[in-house]
Amino acid sequence: MSPMMMMLIAPVLGVVGLLVIVGIYMSLMKQDDGNDKMKQIAALVREGAMAYMSTQMKYVGSFVVLVAVLLAVFLTGKDADGNPIANFGILTAVAYLCGATTSFLCGLIGMNASTRANVRTSAAANKSGMAKALAMAFNGGAIMGLAVASMGLIGFGLAFFLVMHFSGNMAHLAIISGFAMGASSVALFMRVGGGIYTKSADVGADLVGKVEAGIPEDDPRNPAVIADNVGDNVGDVAGMGADLYESYVGSIIAAIALAATTAATDAVSGVAISGNRTAFAMFPILVAAVGLLGSLVAVASIKILQNSAPATALRLSSWIAAAIMLILTYALVNVLGIPAAFAHAVSAGCLIGIAIGVISEYYTSGKPVSEIAESAKTGPATVVIQGLAVGMESIIAPVIGICIAMGVAYYFAGLYGIALGAVGMLGTIGVTMAVDAYGPIADNAGGISEMSELGPETRAITDTLDSLGNTTAAIGKGFAIGSAALTALALYAAYSLAAGVPSIDLKNTTVVIGTFLGGLIPFFVASSTMRSVGAAAFKMVEEVRRQFKEITGLMEGTAKPDTKRCVDIATKAAIQRMMAPGIVAIFFPPVIGFVLGKEALGGALAGATVVGVMVALLMANSGGAWDNAKKYIEAGKLAGFAKKSDPHKAAVVGDTIGDPFKDTSGPAMNILIKLMSVVSLVLAPLLMHAEPLFRL
Amino acid sequence: MSPMMMMLIAPVLGVVGLLVIVGIYMSLMKQDDGNDKMKQIAALVREGAMAYMSTQMKYVGSFVVLVAVLLAVFLTGKDADGNPIANFGILTAVAYLCGATTSFLCGLIGMNASTRANVRTSAAANKSGMAKALAMAFNGGAIMGLAVASMGLIGFGLAFFLVMHFSGNMAHLAIISGFAMGASSVALFMRVGGGIYTKSADVGADLVGKVEAGIPEDDPRNPAVIADNVGDNVGDVAGMGADLYESYVGSIIAAIALAATTAATDAVSGVAISGNRTAFAMFPILVAAVGLLGSLVAVASIKILQNSAPATALRLSSWIAAAIMLILTYALVNVLGIPAAFAHAVSAGCLIGIAIGVISEYYTSGKPVSEIAESAKTGPATVVIQGLAVGMESIIAPVIGICIAMGVAYYFAGLYGIALGAVGMLGTIGVTMAVDAYGPIADNAGGISEMSELGPETRAITDTLDSLGNTTAAIGKGFAIGSAALTALALYAAYSLAAGVPSIDLKNTTVVIGTFLGGLIPFFVASSTMRSVGAAAFKMVEEVRRQFKEITGLMEGTAKPDTKRCVDIATKAAIQRMMAPGIVAIFFPPVIGFVLGKEALGGALAGATVVGVMVALLMANSGGAWDNAKKYIEAGKLAGFAKKSDPHKAAVVGDTIGDPFKDTSGPAMNILIKLMSVVSLVLAPLLMHAEPLFRL
Repeated sequence: MSPMMMMLIAPVLGVVGLLVIVGIYMSLMKQDDGNDKMKQIAALVREGAMAYMSTQMKYVGSFVVLVAVLLAVFLTGKDADGNPIANFGILTAVAYLCGATTSFLCGLIGMNASTRANVRTSAAANKSGMAKALAMAFNGGAIMGLAVASMGLIGFGLAFFLVMHFSGNMAHLAIISGFAMGASSVALFMRVGGGIYTKSADVGADLVGKVEAGIPEDDPRNPAVIADNVGDNVGDVAGMGADLYESYVGSIIAAIALAATTAATDAVSGVAISGNRTAFAMFPILVAAVGLLGSLVAVASIKILQNSAPATALRLSSWIAAAIMLILTYALVNVLGIPAAFAHAVSAGCLIGIAIGVISEYYTSGKPVSEIAESAKTGPATVVIQGLAVGMESIIAPVIGICIAMGVAYYFAGLYGIALGAVGMLGTIGVTMAVDAYGPIADNAGGISEMSELGPETRAITDTLDSLGNTTAAIGKGFAIGSAALTALALYAAYSLAAGVPSIDLKNTTVVIGTFLGGLIPFFVASSTMRSVGAAAFKMVEEVRRQFKEITGLMEGTAKPDTKRCVDIATKAAIQRMMAPGIVAIFFPPVIGFVLGKEALGGALAGATVVGVMVALLMANSGGAWDNAKKYIEAGKLAGFAKKSDPHKAAVVGDTIGDPFKDTSGPAMNILIKLMSVVSLVLAPLLMHAEPLFRL
Repeated sequence: MSPMMMMLIAPVLGVVGLLVIVGIYMSLMKQDDGNDKMKQIAALVREGAMAYMSTQMKYVGSFVVLVAVLLAVFLTGKDADGNPIANFGILTAVAYLCGATTSFLCGLIGMNASTRANVRTSAAANKSGMAKALAMAFNGGAIMGLAVASMGLIGFGLAFFLVMHFSGNMAHLAIISGFAMGASSVALFMRVGGGIYTKSADVGADLVGKVEAGIPEDDPRNPAVIADNVGDNVGDVAGMGADLYESYVGSIIAAIALAATTAATDAVSGVAISGNRTAFAMFPILVAAVGLLGSLVAVASIKILQNSAPATALRLSSWIAAAIMLILTYALVNVLGIPAAFAHAVSAGCLIGIAIGVISEYYTSGKPVSEIAESAKTGPATVVIQGLAVGMESIIAPVIGICIAMGVAYYFAGLYGIALGAVGMLGTIGVTMAVDAYGPIADNAGGISEMSELGPETRAITDTLDSLGNTTAAIGKGFAIGSAALTALALYAAYSLAAGVPSIDLKNTTVVIGTFLGGLIPFFVASSTMRSVGAAAFKMVEEVRRQFKEITGLMEGTAKPDTKRCVDIATKAAIQRMMAPGIVAIFFPPVIGFVLGKEALGGALAGATVVGVMVALLMANSGGAWDNAKKYIEAGKLAGFAKKSDPHKAAVVGDTIGDPFKDTSGPAMNILIKLMSVVSLVLAPLLMHAEPLFRL
């Protein structure tokens, strides 16, 4: 089989993945979706989610089209000999649109599945018990995971095949960077919009419902509860999916770009990167393909694993996928005739990804959580101080992990190796994403069970699944951040080579200024998204208060709340407020690049990545730890204190602060750092010869 | 006058400064120090503060001696021709000990003054009114400010004179870097220890006193209230003094180092740095000398200014000093025959320093404060979310200011210019520090008035002064951070030249790894100091609770609290817990330097500086804004809500979280970034030729 034909394996495997998705979806639809009340609630959630997606599509779509036009008109590119590449801007714009569309499609497919799986998980918990419910939620998540991997492979595989088939010139592969930029642009809006949506609804529902009205979570009398459940889907499923899709696509793009541009001998490490360049460019795509294979096996194996403890089942499924991918990766280097050292780089990323998950699990469910619960005895202030201290401490180990992955991957394969490490971390996305998306589905199932009054036994099952979902969500977040960091660094390396930056020297004051300015962006985005959640939650609170006051019989359960108005408030707030951070993230790199120069832009990307990764970890882990500290007290583990005690109230304050931390602002960082890097990479051909406006 | 003789102006002016201090102190001591009760309380505060200083001296002293021995034994240095400098290690160790001792002395002098001025301010407020009380508090602060400037000038001036007199070789000036490292080491412990002390006492006193027992702030029945007042002195006076002393010393050292090592034409900017090198090295010292002159005039002018509104008086005094310094700086360049561009660099730093103060004032007393107060209506969670959002946003403008100062200074005088900018920012330290130290003195005066029951009119005066003190403290913090950032950057530049690092290239993975690892340190220190405050406050709470329970008649005011035990608890906690962050900060640079290499260390310093500056600004401004949001509600400015309302309680939660933010962890960042840079600069001769343990 010729190498070029081999490349068709990737899109073919992608199509197989899509067929599997259709199979899972059809079998899911056949399952019992509960009684009328459940159907009705599920339909409300579904409609709300779809309405949000279609509104979002209009706004994001317009923005994407605008950027595509800019790319088509202004972008030019040259090959290695300095000859202009025909239609470079237009082709990049097409790739950009493809990346944006597939990203959006992934979100749509995943959300469609999750809004079907939630009610069926609830029904399974009611009728068949834990094992069936687990499998249902997992399969719902698997659809999203497999969609991410399959779409990516089809997109890349075809693009690679077409470029190489028609031009055969590796320099033309730069066009594919547009694909990653498209995926990134959509991802930022989906993450930020979804994050604002879910948390304004959640915080709003909690502040009035739990705190003021004294009714339990997910109580059907609470007008914001449907919006809260919609939020789980648009934020935690669609948003997370777009985030990981972007990492997946970005890491592969970076590897392809570096395969084409990296020096034969890495300047710094002295590692020889010699051999067949085309094979180098194919390698990351094929690693992703065998990763999808591993994921498919892992997803299938849940049928057997579902009978073990849920935590074990989910963990084993991830490990199976990773093992299969790594074994096949070593086979691949043999087939392609490239150095085995490349496979080591892939392994480094894969293993550190797993380690970061374990660390996140410790900080969000281990000793730090009981310490936070303990500090609740002296009130909310100490809960916040302790939680922030835990969050800051939790940055250390994962960042050291990222440094080790970077160092090892670089040692084995130079800058190209860093991109391979990222691909290794993300290769098993099919199953990682399934484990992650399982959480919000279980959460939704709990909500539907509560609202449909399915009784305490069902609720106990969904509670167990939901609480595990909190842990898997924290692991998923750690993983998302780690992979975003490696991907951003790989894209960063690709940018510095593609733009022909001779050095990004911190002895140069312009670079230092760039580093400071870049470091500001994560704080700007965090600040603006936190304010957005605060303002939107405030509106939600006012609306819920109004309904409790004006709708007679609502509190007694004889009248129905107007849930649609709450859904509308969340939708509007999310759409309005996601634009500013998105626009800043996209336009910051060109502004710095053209005003202060490409070196300053290099500094800015480094500053943004360092700060962004740390803020993301802080926010994800503080948020997760606060949430679980509250649950710890609710479970009666803080001796002498129970639900509604003062320490519990203090812990609820921590949890509420943690909501925008872990689900809005924190996750936005992942996309931010990747998006800024990929925008720089795409604009590299223009920056290469641009004279900065100011030269110090 | 020969240039060398001119250099004697600096130490002579320093001696004049000391004589002025003695004059102010003697006139201060002559003032009425109130009735017996006031004297008794003031004595308790004074004894507590001195006891803490002496305990701290033992621990810090041992550590300093250890480091001095290490320097004497292991450090070697070479001059420009590669010839070893005789006794380089021993001379550096001596400079180190001088820097450490003078730093400690500054703290001691300042604290001695502040613990005399507090009670006299209280008495003046009681008998003579606002103007006299303002002057008293300001003069108390001026002693500290002038001590910082005078000590620095004497230390440097003499060292410079001696080195040049005996050797005449500019390379030998590298020895003086030890002076800055000594000042830095002591500063870190004073800042961190003082910060833990003041906040464990404050939070402990508030949690039980205000929240549980329902007694007002500074109530004499509260056993922790003396410790709280001691804390103001050891943290906000001695700690802040050591911090600014370090910046002052560090900026001048960096300028001297860069004058000696910077290239004749700056490599990047192409600025010609030609002329008399010795004059270049003298210039920063002379700028500091004219800055002290300006400060002396400003301090004297408070006699006239005291009759205007307190805020205006303080602001005008700073401006007078700055104006005098800048005018004389332009005269200096003429006398020394060096480019006027150097004076522009000084101006850039000076003006941006003032601008950063104005920005800090806006964020801690402008619209953001009323927004936080508004968010208190929906409880403590939204107060925290809003406060953090404000804090994050507040990073942006000052960092842009720092970038502008850096860019302008660099444009006019290359890397040497950045150090000159820092000197310009810090030159008027005498008055800046006076304005800053005025705050805790006024705060203490309020406490003494309350405890001595001097009645509401006196309290009204001290409250006005104290509330202004909150604003000046915020301005002082912004200024401290800005100057720390410029100083760290100047030291950073000096390090990169002194260690002969060819480039600190972010295209080199080792540098990127260094950047990440360096970025971790601020978070580690913030996390560990926040935990320390939490744990120490917890012990304080337990002790106060115990006393209220076991001492009969305490609540009724018939029995006296055991304030000494609270003082002991705070002292022990501060001493125990300041060591770990201090040791990490000092040993991190050599570990990175020798293990990963001097390039990685360059990356680490940049990462630590970028992250440290941002975390410091976030913490200072969030903390200040929360504090003032609470005061805003107390002043009845939040329509419909007063003290003890639910929004007020929510705002108290924010204020309590802000305490360790603004007074412990945030300020620790300033020193951290300077200390790491100066340690690297001192070790530069060893790192120059060291082969790293790992080379990727």
